[in-house]
Amino acid sequence: MRVPVVIPFKPKNPKTRLSCVLNDEEREIFALAMLRDVVGAIRSAGCDPLILSTASFTLPEGEEVRVEILDQGLNEAIDIFCIANTGPLAIIMADLALADRSSILALMTSGSDMAIVPGRGGGTNAVYIRSADKFRAQYYGTSYLKHVRFASDAGLTCSVIDSFRLYCDVDEQDDLVEVLLHTSGNAKKYLQSLGFRIESRKSRIGVSRN
Amino acid sequence: MRVPVVIPFKPKNPKTRLSCVLNDEEREIFALAMLRDVVGAIRSAGCDPLILSTASFTLPEGEEVRVEILDQGLNEAIDIFCIANTGPLAIIMADLALADRSSILALMTSGSDMAIVPGRGGGTNAVYIRSADKFRAQYYGTSYLKHVRFASDAGLTCSVIDSFRLYCDVDEQDDLVEVLLHTSGNAKKYLQSLGFRIESRKSRIGVSRN
Repeated sequence: MRVPVVIPFKPKNPKTRLSCVLNDEEREIFALAMLRDVVGAIRSAGCDPLILSTASFTLPEGEEVRVEILDQGLNEAIDIFCIANTGPLAIIMADLALADRSSILALMTSGSDMAIVPGRGGGTNAVYIRSADKFRAQYYGTSYLKHVRFASDAGLTCSVIDSFRLYCDVDEQDDLVEVLLHTSGNAKKYLQSLGFRIESRKSRIGVSRN
Repeated sequence: MRVPVVIPFKPKNPKTRLSCVLNDEEREIFALAMLRDVVGAIRSAGCDPLILSTASFTLPEGEEVRVEILDQGLNEAIDIFCIANTGPLAIIMADLALADRSSILALMTSGSDMAIVPGRGGGTNAVYIRSADKFRAQYYGTSYLKHVRFASDAGLTCSVIDSFRLYCDVDEQDDLVEVLLHTSGNAKKYLQSLGFRIESRKSRIGVSRN
């Protein structure tokens, strides 16, 4: 059986911290491009993507993915999937544009009851649970610490997966550099079509838009 | 033979982008604490650390590491080590406070002629070279791209190692969160002794100092 992977997604007014470089429509197209890249990576790892979306949206023709509309909060919606499922499940964020087959396989094959990839700043970018019914989602705030504590309290073994590809979420202007440097999918192509290029700065490099 | 690992280090006025939260003396102590953690991680992976420092400095009693003083630019100094060495060599930055045994072993065991871990923003945080005499250092600016291009031009196979522990360098205030979240060594203890704590914010979490 293919492991189901839930991808929470917000198609309307997404990625507001990119408003400094992308207008509303561009942010929607960019968020969708990243989602499509994440779906592709999940499929390349032999898993079964399921998008949990806050609103309906349209994928390009020929790209079919199962979509369910989120009627509750994210934690509550994920818990409903988990309670009904004694098999393995993963939850992967829709803005992990650097995700690839290897990093997702690393998440799936840790051998622990749970595996977590932290995000920059203490978020939870990806979680795997061997028996989904034992999991309760702890998103928002210091969710990485909350998920690690949850595993400990529930008596579940828990691995932290060491992957920068799943650690990098794309929220801010500087994160676009990582997309340009380390990917070749829809998100990068869209940024390039808008004129984004890597730009040398005094310290770390950044992006510029022509 | 233990693989030598060169660690470039700047003991005087280091980490200037942390000036907003640490004074001059604190930045020097913090940089030294991170260096000691990196040295410990390198040793735990069975490798032989060699600090290449821009000035002399004092390690705590009992912590002996080979130190050479940098008389040239970083690239030139590293090239001198490389030219004289047909065996393997690695170069790991002194501010990778999250480095651990596993991530360093992943760098050393890729099986390629070269292995690179990019840093946030296109730097090169760690490099492994199977035959050091074939390597010429390309630090500064978009060094990650320069090193990848160097490998290609030199006909060397090159792996990109997917590790957030080696991807995270500690340059800015927000990077201190990662030290508090993911480490337990000298750097974290020093930050805690100064009153740094994880602080919840609207989006990503940050640090506060009491």
